Amino acid sequence: MGLAIVAPNKSKKEIADWVAVFNELEPGIDLQVYPEISRMEEVEVVVLWQHPKGILKSFPNLKLICSMGSGVDHIMADYVPDNVPITRIVDPRLTFSMTNYVVMGILNYHRQILRYMRDKRTKTWDMSQPEIPITVGVMGVGELGGDVLDKVKALGISAVGYGNRPKATFRHPYYYGEELQDFLNEVNVLVCLLPLTEKTEGFLNKELFRKCKPGTYLINVARGRHLVEADLIPAIESGQLSGALLDVFQQEPLPKAHPFWEQEQITITPHIASITNYRAAAPQIIENYKNLLQNSPLINEISKVQGY
Amino acid sequence: MGLAIVAPNKSKKEIADWVAVFNELEPGIDLQVYPEISRMEEVEVVVLWQHPKGILKSFPNLKLICSMGSGVDHIMADYVPDNVPITRIVDPRLTFSMTNYVVMGILNYHRQILRYMRDKRTKTWDMSQPEIPITVGVMGVGELGGDVLDKVKALGISAVGYGNRPKATFRHPYYYGEELQDFLNEVNVLVCLLPLTEKTEGFLNKELFRKCKPGTYLINVARGRHLVEADLIPAIESGQLSGALLDVFQQEPLPKAHPFWEQEQITITPHIASITNYRAAAPQIIENYKNLLQNSPLINEISKVQGY
Repeated sequence: MGLAIVAPNKSKKEIADWVAVFNELEPGIDLQVYPEISRMEEVEVVVLWQHPKGILKSFPNLKLICSMGSGVDHIMADYVPDNVPITRIVDPRLTFSMTNYVVMGILNYHRQILRYMRDKRTKTWDMSQPEIPITVGVMGVGELGGDVLDKVKALGISAVGYGNRPKATFRHPYYYGEELQDFLNEVNVLVCLLPLTEKTEGFLNKELFRKCKPGTYLINVARGRHLVEADLIPAIESGQLSGALLDVFQQEPLPKAHPFWEQEQITITPHIASITNYRAAAPQIIENYKNLLQNSPLINEISKVQGY
Repeated sequence: MGLAIVAPNKSKKEIADWVAVFNELEPGIDLQVYPEISRMEEVEVVVLWQHPKGILKSFPNLKLICSMGSGVDHIMADYVPDNVPITRIVDPRLTFSMTNYVVMGILNYHRQILRYMRDKRTKTWDMSQPEIPITVGVMGVGELGGDVLDKVKALGISAVGYGNRPKATFRHPYYYGEELQDFLNEVNVLVCLLPLTEKTEGFLNKELFRKCKPGTYLINVARGRHLVEADLIPAIESGQLSGALLDVFQQEPLPKAHPFWEQEQITITPHIASITNYRAAAPQIIENYKNLLQNSPLINEISKVQGY
């Protein structure tokens, strides 16, 4: 059974790391790496990150599609053969990183670090109003949203979730579906951890911002395409939002000419909130490779209907 | 039984807030406020914040000294009559604020917010090394140190404490006394939450910095006098420390000419990590006023021998 890695935007060094771990975990594995894939018909497992559109049509014997990261939107956005399952990575280290990044963003807003950094430049000592009272709203009630809610509540900060639909397995109460306005009425820090699907693309837009309490702070750590970027600066300038912490963008790297760079209330990080570690990810892919060989159930398989 | 407030650096508004709560909780209380104290002999309880040195000698019938905040160093630094107990404020809200400030500082170092803010100014997209691995060392194993250790560990970050002496009641393992070097060998983020006493004044000095792992990050939220300020910038310039987050200073407000304002690796906040809320504090003082009347045990009494 052959495996192919198709990740044209990853560096040679990154690909070499993945190849080394695959070989270490499964010596003798039949491994091909894009663009040097000659034996298409021998590929039964593909390992994907931002693959060229349509390439999956070239593998006639495909049995499994593995995302190299926690998201599968890059796969769902293209042609996917029927009856071929898709798996993603679930990495506790990735959850740890995502949560501590989000908590950092929440606390920096709550304790106004940007204000104090500005005050430092002008040597201003202003003790007034040292805290902004906050209630955190977490959009997305999966692995990551659940962990953020755990940790934020552990700090004694009030927080509530919002998801697409009711879900018996989620350990926090949350709003869902049509209850969006009720959810937004409660919160003034909005964290986007939604999966990217047809339904959630562009979810962070001017209609949503108008429903937010004035001065709501936005943190987007999911995907750039959740945000209608043109709507953000007007919402900040009108005071509807007080600012944003953004880790993801429609186009990455964020182009030099993009207005976000110069907006003072927008904090930018270069898609580093949570980075998939190949040491954690590769074993999960090899485990599914073996599950497939042995006809055992796959781990971390996603629902093609829901798209995550 | 008369009560006097002696807090010359608090604003009229602040004093009025305290007076209002005292009157609300204990209608008819005999209350005098410095500098308008005429009936010295009637004062049995003093409520102090940064009082004029020696003033306690003027109250011949003093039975109780109450700090208006969580620290008592401002009291212990002056003459204190024998056999008069001292109490402090223990405020869960104060602990909440202190901890979330410290966690903010820890995460900003871990996730390098200063670097990304610099990168924003130059429109630089640099994804390399997005996290600095950290182990947090908390100096001070009281209310506040314990809460910081709880919350930092809840985030999955490794952390260890350091205190003066062994203490059966503390819920985390910690180093103490002569084990300072062992403690410093483990950590690269150093949080000072020590009480200010003769022993701890100037504890953060060049000898301590030399014992730290190169690149250790310092957070001081205790008292300005814990830090030998002249030793900090040389330690940062030599790389012994990587930077500092300071909320407290030898002189406050920090003078405009102070070199800390212009040191890029030092983040400054104006003593706002944790502010005593009179709504939480005043009832504790009234409770002790009543305890005294009824000969009941005091709450939050400090040890004069230990100084905290």
